[in-house]
Amino acid sequence: MNINSRKTAPVGVFDSGVGGLTVAREISRQLPNENIVYFGDTARVPYGSKSQNTIIRFSEQIIRFLKTKDVKAIVIACNTASALALDAVRDEFDVPVMGVVIPGARAAVEATCNRKIGVVGTDATVRSGMYTKIIRQMAPDITVVEKACPLFVPLVEEGFKDHAVTREIIEYYLESMRGSGIDAMILGCTHYPLLRSKIREYMGEGIQIVNPAYETALDLKRLLRDREMENDGATEEHSRYSFYVSDAAEKFRRFANTVMPFDVPTTNVVNIEEY
Amino acid sequence: MNINSRKTAPVGVFDSGVGGLTVAREISRQLPNENIVYFGDTARVPYGSKSQNTIIRFSEQIIRFLKTKDVKAIVIACNTASALALDAVRDEFDVPVMGVVIPGARAAVEATCNRKIGVVGTDATVRSGMYTKIIRQMAPDITVVEKACPLFVPLVEEGFKDHAVTREIIEYYLESMRGSGIDAMILGCTHYPLLRSKIREYMGEGIQIVNPAYETALDLKRLLRDREMENDGATEEHSRYSFYVSDAAEKFRRFANTVMPFDVPTTNVVNIEEY
Repeated sequence: MNINSRKTAPVGVFDSGVGGLTVAREISRQLPNENIVYFGDTARVPYGSKSQNTIIRFSEQIIRFLKTKDVKAIVIACNTASALALDAVRDEFDVPVMGVVIPGARAAVEATCNRKIGVVGTDATVRSGMYTKIIRQMAPDITVVEKACPLFVPLVEEGFKDHAVTREIIEYYLESMRGSGIDAMILGCTHYPLLRSKIREYMGEGIQIVNPAYETALDLKRLLRDREMENDGATEEHSRYSFYVSDAAEKFRRFANTVMPFDVPTTNVVNIEEY
Repeated sequence: MNINSRKTAPVGVFDSGVGGLTVAREISRQLPNENIVYFGDTARVPYGSKSQNTIIRFSEQIIRFLKTKDVKAIVIACNTASALALDAVRDEFDVPVMGVVIPGARAAVEATCNRKIGVVGTDATVRSGMYTKIIRQMAPDITVVEKACPLFVPLVEEGFKDHAVTREIIEYYLESMRGSGIDAMILGCTHYPLLRSKIREYMGEGIQIVNPAYETALDLKRLLRDREMENDGATEEHSRYSFYVSDAAEKFRRFANTVMPFDVPTTNVVNIEEY
């Protein structure tokens, strides 16, 4: 592939389901010339309760699929897969792969004044301790408090975002974190930004809330520039985003149309187990 | 296989995860001589939000796996897979396959006096309308009210069974059903019996609550007797239950030990996508 075709090649973005669309949206805002191939593993969602071996195997299958679309770089837009699979897959494929954990950790390290950071995420992400490990590598003096909030994803997916029970479940999970003295908090799951205002209301104004999606798009921009793979927009391709899922394409498409700032006309189903 | 080896062959039982253990437990009570091979699809749980095609494909893979264990009959101990996949797989394999929907529907038809039955289940089960279809085939005069309660499974799995929010979420889902005049109610998801006392408290004493697991074990007994495949207990095999999962064996084993009336010493992991 010559350098020009690499520039116009798409970026692959994947997640266990719809959550990574918030990362794809951020990339579309910050890198408007880039083409995106998105894959959501809706047949096997959620990843947050599953084991590392399984999450690595699923991620490898998805990367093999994305490579058939000639992607020039891959973003793991899922905190759980970033935390548990990035180290395993990064050197396995001849395409740069990045996750959301390192960008999110860096933003929190920059945001904290009192050197105390909170991290909320799925069971698997928190059990991995990956955010703590990465933050400590960046700044060994920082204290990190992690908390798994496994009901947040089903609450968002079932439309309970504004129901009174959501406030109670936020209190149940975050009471100890509110008393822990943190001044920055990473929303370490792509669904959680959809509860941002409720979490802010409970945690108070004194805490900076970090959404790793924004920083991830910045990191991707840097990576493409460093490797001279930025799409300079000289081509005429405008069907620039394509969406693939492993199940329930129509349900995904409807959700995507509520998240993405443009119309998502079609979603394609892939039998991901064959990759 | 001669008739004696068929008698001592195990019964295969499968579910999307741990829920079907309540069915396996009921079989172990009512058919104490039978050997059981249980498979829980913990790598791809839950099924309740997924499409029919995907649930059929997953069920076929699991049945192919169970056949390698020489099972003499298979029980789909998952309401969603029973509702969406039983018709597709029943004639595809040379082993009898039964689900939990027909036994559950029959019990509710026998229980109702005023000919009004309620059904609660996952999104996929309720969307399939299978309980209504089966009940109407048995008794066309019966009115069926179905309601999906997608948060019940994560509430049970995350240990919120006795938390105050569970009461509120039960009210949210079941308020209209309580006012609908039903006098029998099917718990159409294997997790829901674990919320039985809370559901009974909310719905009131006037409603008969049907757990399909009990009736399913009775139906299996009948099926084995009709085909002369009942294990008469003459053999000496006592390592009679074996447990397989597609992920997170240790977590499954711990849960199984809280459900089964005997010690579950080991659980084996199977790469189910290979079947």
